[in-house]
Amino acid sequence: MTVHTTSNAPADLTNIPKKHKAAVYDKPGTLSIKMVEVDTPEPGQGEVLVRLTHSGVCHSDYSVMMNAWKALPAPTPAGQVGGHEGVGFVAKLGPGLENSPVQVGDRVGIKWLSAVCNSCVPCLSGRDSSCTAGKISGYYTPGTFQQYATAPASYVTPIPAELDSAAAAPQLCAGVTVYAAMQKADVKAGQFVVIMGAGGGLGHLACALASKGFGARVIGIDHGSKRAIAEDNGVEFFIDFTETKDVTAEIMKITGGLGAHSVLVVTASNAAYAQSLTFLRFGGIVVCIGVPEGDLAPVGTASPALLIFKELRLVGSAVGGRLQAIETLDFAARGVLKTHYKTAKLEDIAQVFQDMEDGKIQGRVVVEID
Amino acid sequence: MTVHTTSNAPADLTNIPKKHKAAVYDKPGTLSIKMVEVDTPEPGQGEVLVRLTHSGVCHSDYSVMMNAWKALPAPTPAGQVGGHEGVGFVAKLGPGLENSPVQVGDRVGIKWLSAVCNSCVPCLSGRDSSCTAGKISGYYTPGTFQQYATAPASYVTPIPAELDSAAAAPQLCAGVTVYAAMQKADVKAGQFVVIMGAGGGLGHLACALASKGFGARVIGIDHGSKRAIAEDNGVEFFIDFTETKDVTAEIMKITGGLGAHSVLVVTASNAAYAQSLTFLRFGGIVVCIGVPEGDLAPVGTASPALLIFKELRLVGSAVGGRLQAIETLDFAARGVLKTHYKTAKLEDIAQVFQDMEDGKIQGRVVVEID
Amino acid sequence: MTVHTTSNAPADLTNIPKKHKAAVYDKPGTLSIKMVEVDTPEPGQGEVLVRLTHSGVCHSDYSVMMNAWKALPAPTPAGQVGGHEGVGFVAKLGPGLENSPVQVGDRVGIKWLSAVCNSCVPCLSGRDSSCTAGKISGYYTPGTFQQYATAPASYVTPIPAELDSAAAAPQLCAGVTVYAAMQKADVKAGQFVVIMGAGGGLGHLACALASKGFGARVIGIDHGSKRAIAEDNGVEFFIDFTETKDVTAEIMKITGGLGAHSVLVVTASNAAYAQSLTFLRFGGIVVCIGVPEGDLAPVGTASPALLIFKELRLVGSAVGGRLQAIETLDFAARGVLKTHYKTAKLEDIAQVFQDMEDGKIQGRVVVEID
Amino acid sequence: MTVHTTSNAPADLTNIPKKHKAAVYDKPGTLSIKMVEVDTPEPGQGEVLVRLTHSGVCHSDYSVMMNAWKALPAPTPAGQVGGHEGVGFVAKLGPGLENSPVQVGDRVGIKWLSAVCNSCVPCLSGRDSSCTAGKISGYYTPGTFQQYATAPASYVTPIPAELDSAAAAPQLCAGVTVYAAMQKADVKAGQFVVIMGAGGGLGHLACALASKGFGARVIGIDHGSKRAIAEDNGVEFFIDFTETKDVTAEIMKITGGLGAHSVLVVTASNAAYAQSLTFLRFGGIVVCIGVPEGDLAPVGTASPALLIFKELRLVGSAVGGRLQAIETLDFAARGVLKTHYKTAKLEDIAQVFQDMEDGKIQGRVVVEID
Repeated sequence: MTVHTTSNAPADLTNIPKKHKAAVYDKPGTLSIKMVEVDTPEPGQGEVLVRLTHSGVCHSDYSVMMNAWKALPAPTPAGQVGGHEGVGFVAKLGPGLENSPVQVGDRVGIKWLSAVCNSCVPCLSGRDSSCTAGKISGYYTPGTFQQYATAPASYVTPIPAELDSAAAAPQLCAGVTVYAAMQKADVKAGQFVVIMGAGGGLGHLACALASKGFGARVIGIDHGSKRAIAEDNGVEFFIDFTETKDVTAEIMKITGGLGAHSVLVVTASNAAYAQSLTFLRFGGIVVCIGVPEGDLAPVGTASPALLIFKELRLVGSAVGGRLQAIETLDFAARGVLKTHYKTAKLEDIAQVFQDMEDGKIQGRVVVEID
Repeated sequence: MTVHTTSNAPADLTNIPKKHKAAVYDKPGTLSIKMVEVDTPEPGQGEVLVRLTHSGVCHSDYSVMMNAWKALPAPTPAGQVGGHEGVGFVAKLGPGLENSPVQVGDRVGIKWLSAVCNSCVPCLSGRDSSCTAGKISGYYTPGTFQQYATAPASYVTPIPAELDSAAAAPQLCAGVTVYAAMQKADVKAGQFVVIMGAGGGLGHLACALASKGFGARVIGIDHGSKRAIAEDNGVEFFIDFTETKDVTAEIMKITGGLGAHSVLVVTASNAAYAQSLTFLRFGGIVVCIGVPEGDLAPVGTASPALLIFKELRLVGSAVGGRLQAIETLDFAARGVLKTHYKTAKLEDIAQVFQDMEDGKIQGRVVVEID
Repeated sequence: MTVHTTSNAPADLTNIPKKHKAAVYDKPGTLSIKMVEVDTPEPGQGEVLVRLTHSGVCHSDYSVMMNAWKALPAPTPAGQVGGHEGVGFVAKLGPGLENSPVQVGDRVGIKWLSAVCNSCVPCLSGRDSSCTAGKISGYYTPGTFQQYATAPASYVTPIPAELDSAAAAPQLCAGVTVYAAMQKADVKAGQFVVIMGAGGGLGHLACALASKGFGARVIGIDHGSKRAIAEDNGVEFFIDFTETKDVTAEIMKITGGLGAHSVLVVTASNAAYAQSLTFLRFGGIVVCIGVPEGDLAPVGTASPALLIFKELRLVGSAVGGRLQAIETLDFAARGVLKTHYKTAKLEDIAQVFQDMEDGKIQGRVVVEID
Repeated sequence: MTVHTTSNAPADLTNIPKKHKAAVYDKPGTLSIKMVEVDTPEPGQGEVLVRLTHSGVCHSDYSVMMNAWKALPAPTPAGQVGGHEGVGFVAKLGPGLENSPVQVGDRVGIKWLSAVCNSCVPCLSGRDSSCTAGKISGYYTPGTFQQYATAPASYVTPIPAELDSAAAAPQLCAGVTVYAAMQKADVKAGQFVVIMGAGGGLGHLACALASKGFGARVIGIDHGSKRAIAEDNGVEFFIDFTETKDVTAEIMKITGGLGAHSVLVVTASNAAYAQSLTFLRFGGIVVCIGVPEGDLAPVGTASPALLIFKELRLVGSAVGGRLQAIETLDFAARGVLKTHYKTAKLEDIAQVFQDMEDGKIQGRVVVEID
């Protein structure tokens, strides 16, 4: 594994092979992914063909592979190419893109949603991440664990020159998710924001964005082993939940007795959700990000009574949209958001997922393609 | 029981007796209230003494009497005067009110919060209903089931001339609660708003305010016996939950497949909360108003997964503040909000609570205080 | 001139002629429009060809014809087909629309912006009306004063079945403009909204939408001859500016001394703008809609000092976007917004513009296109 | 002049003299201020007597002294004590404050508004800075250029322990003004904010708060001599208006062709207001802070046409309220906001005003009292 430097478009960009390498889920529902050869697709109307050089490996890929989310409408199809954090170069334009701002040689990203309809009410409202006909990359649409993928020119994300491709890849999903959540938390300068899971993959990005981006005062909660990464990312008050007997009391003390303004729950733990309601001030906001796997579990003690008396707000946040992706990469290009990642070869992706299952991964893994 | 006409200040307003009649909870935790004589208090610094003529009887009074809300910090003290929807005339000014806009003879109301501190962060934010030191009328502060009560001049609510005192009383609590909830639902003109419990005491007011006040399209859900009152109050689509097999499908049909923009849950049923999440559109809002009694019950299936994928919002709403009370009475004075109520004598209040427990009350009861 | 009934798709819809009738500005800068024959265009990628049956005639068409707006980047090209409030039936699909929700036979509308880029920051923000590459119908893009026009399938507006085509046409511009302005005024239920020019083409729609749609209390200002139309459209307080000596004092009286919450200036008069600042309450909003013709005139007394001390807000509002058009037609379909219009033949459009110049038009004129 | 260190309550705090020193405007309308002896007032109901140790000298004091603002309702009364940025210790409580959170020995501040009514609609809305009966310190209410002044316990601002009294004084006005303006600009993390007058008294605070507090990217405009102070306070792009031919073009370049999101005009120049409209993006916000002296001047080219086509917003911002003062001092206590000031003796205040008129003051002057 190596740290990647800024990429330039490969010389043979327009030499497009008939077939290419891809990593597919051969037995969805089990930990099973293998390398195969697939046909290189033609870009359709308004689409570009992207020669991918990097793809982040996200825990959501694991959930899709394992059919772990009961909330998705159908099991993952066998033989699907996974992945949804891809970066590469536009290798070919489909019809109708003569005047497009996106042209061959541009470096672009493909996200969780690889395409949206541009016509439904969410799309018309500037909330394309809630598109009623969006295509999820690596689920029912071939993803980014391969050398070539197609996507609409209007929906790929331009990568700023300041950003390394490997560093950009995870921002397209983890970074965007955190930014969209921060907006839903309505974080204001000087407010107290709690991050539950402060040292994790999403958590450390949330800490950095809240403190250095939004000017908030960040209270990070996590296992003591995560203290360093949390504090490196701007946490002002770190609470080790294994040592602090009364987390709520501690937060009340920090916040002068009023409680925090908002909390981002980036862990998938129902206990975290239950606790989150107890340390907020009147009108405080819980942003729900971590999706519990398995059955749709109830919010432990997310009691209407608590919500009502303190007039709290519970807000769900899935992924961000097109504009949020652009803005997230801008935060990353300016150094506000920094991904902690290592690289691996696409061919070794099965091992990456095995490590993920074994809880051996610190930060993100980005696979290098070709 | 009779319908009351507009009151004028009594001739003997400034003849203040040493003692007066009051209805007190003699054995909190049981259905028990009796008439007694109590000392008439002197208004303190900045306070007025109000000679009450009417008080609404709210289900929250019953909850306070029965110690039914586990979320309140302590049991109700024995011998407390209940009530928090009082209307009457200012009979005397305490010290420091020479230049107050409130003067003897003014008709004013006393609300759920009879006083706030004007200094805590919620108060400074214009959210006095979340005051950290607010005094709840009829709980640890003597309430409005009596002939005389004190309250700060700056916190009583002026009653508009167009409004009958008996009609005004329930608006100070039921009306304000509904208005504050509507604001939290961020209801916009032309949106679909669902009212769960559309024919109830709060529900019918919510229907009227949403449709005639806010210009929304109201979908009311309730038992078929409530269809008439719901439709009289502006419900455009009534759903009888005893007859409609699939309420969610019905709402999807009405809303063109997208789901409703928001829902106000005015019933205290966990089943209602669980269902409410299923028929909202992306980003939809559930306003939680009905407080379940007894143990703090979990939100049935208020699953983070559902919240997250549809990016829903769950917002608690308790009571409204001082400005919202003024605005609510303005809606009432203009006929947008109409209370359905009957009157009874203060002396018969034990029977009123018995009827409440037996589910015999339609709309509100307002007690006349002589 | 006749009142039109609901249209159905013509039987010969797919019989598309090589050439068709159009009304073109032959000498922009002068009042000059004539009927000619033009080639019927082929719909491009993602476009539909619309067989127009009606087009509203808007004062903005007049301004474009006369080169009256100095703020537009270039003079209108000679020979351009005018018009931007067109309604008709989709007669043919361009390539790439096999799965489009818009199909042949659908009744749709073409607006001021006939197309947007879907890629610029305003478009991505859900503010397509500020698209940096939008095409203005009847200016540098052939407009709706003709039998056939092309537009992107994703940008035409579906017309609700309840609406007559002639009635729908002006809503696509006048209605949308008023609705977008009302949103910028952040009008809330029960607030006082002033409409300056309450009886005019935009004004009467603003009165109706503010009162019946948004639940506001409307103060209408106009010449006494407009009292009836203003009051028919929901004005609660009408001020005849020719008879009322002190308009500001009158509004202060109506609003209990505080001033109005917001004002929509739909006239193009600088005097109106100057006056508008004087009768608002703290934090009040002036929405600027009427565009003064000729030189870019300063806001008379829109003094920073007045703005600052009362913390007022001045907000410009041009036209609305795609979603606002859909929502506006929904208000119209439900009878909240009603256009006052008469019809004329397309061939008589020169006379319509002459009448407009002579100030002889009441409400709108809609041309029927055979 | 010296830099002050953190103050502690003086030992003789409760030894209150009958008379004390004060600086009064003896001939308002001219540059004229002199030291006199005045009676020490008794604190009224709910008031505290503050023994002042410091007061900032603000340009608004000069304007009040000179009767320079035509927008104020009446000329300044002769013999008035000026000043509105006072810091000191509570020396005595008036009646009714037994349970007040403010007690003798507390360090508190007195602001531009020394008292508000707590009852008008602005106060009830959490916008006490627009109180309809607010008392302006140093105008018709004796100000802070004296040893003792009274103010309501509920309206003085607690000074955080981390802050030196001299440093705190100007934050009560300059800091609060800048913070309130930033909120009105609705500044979001990562946005481009322009500060016109970036190196001035308000300007440098705005730069610091926008960049370090709100996470915005700051474009500062000022004379080249102010480059250092602007850049020290977080300006990312400095534009020297004496050297840059086309400021608008420069800002367009910096912002990728879209224009800035918002601009704070802290200078009192009409030319600045006119220019501000030209470099904003669609929907951009101009916050008007600098109050032009003399006649109420029109906004140069604040043309409705420009506002309308780009849908810009012009927002007035006066001073902030009570909660904003608390939050501003929190920014200052954490080092986000730093005042550049020098100290002088109260006895030398005439010279301070003379220096102000002569344009000799860099940053702020804070007078030491006793």
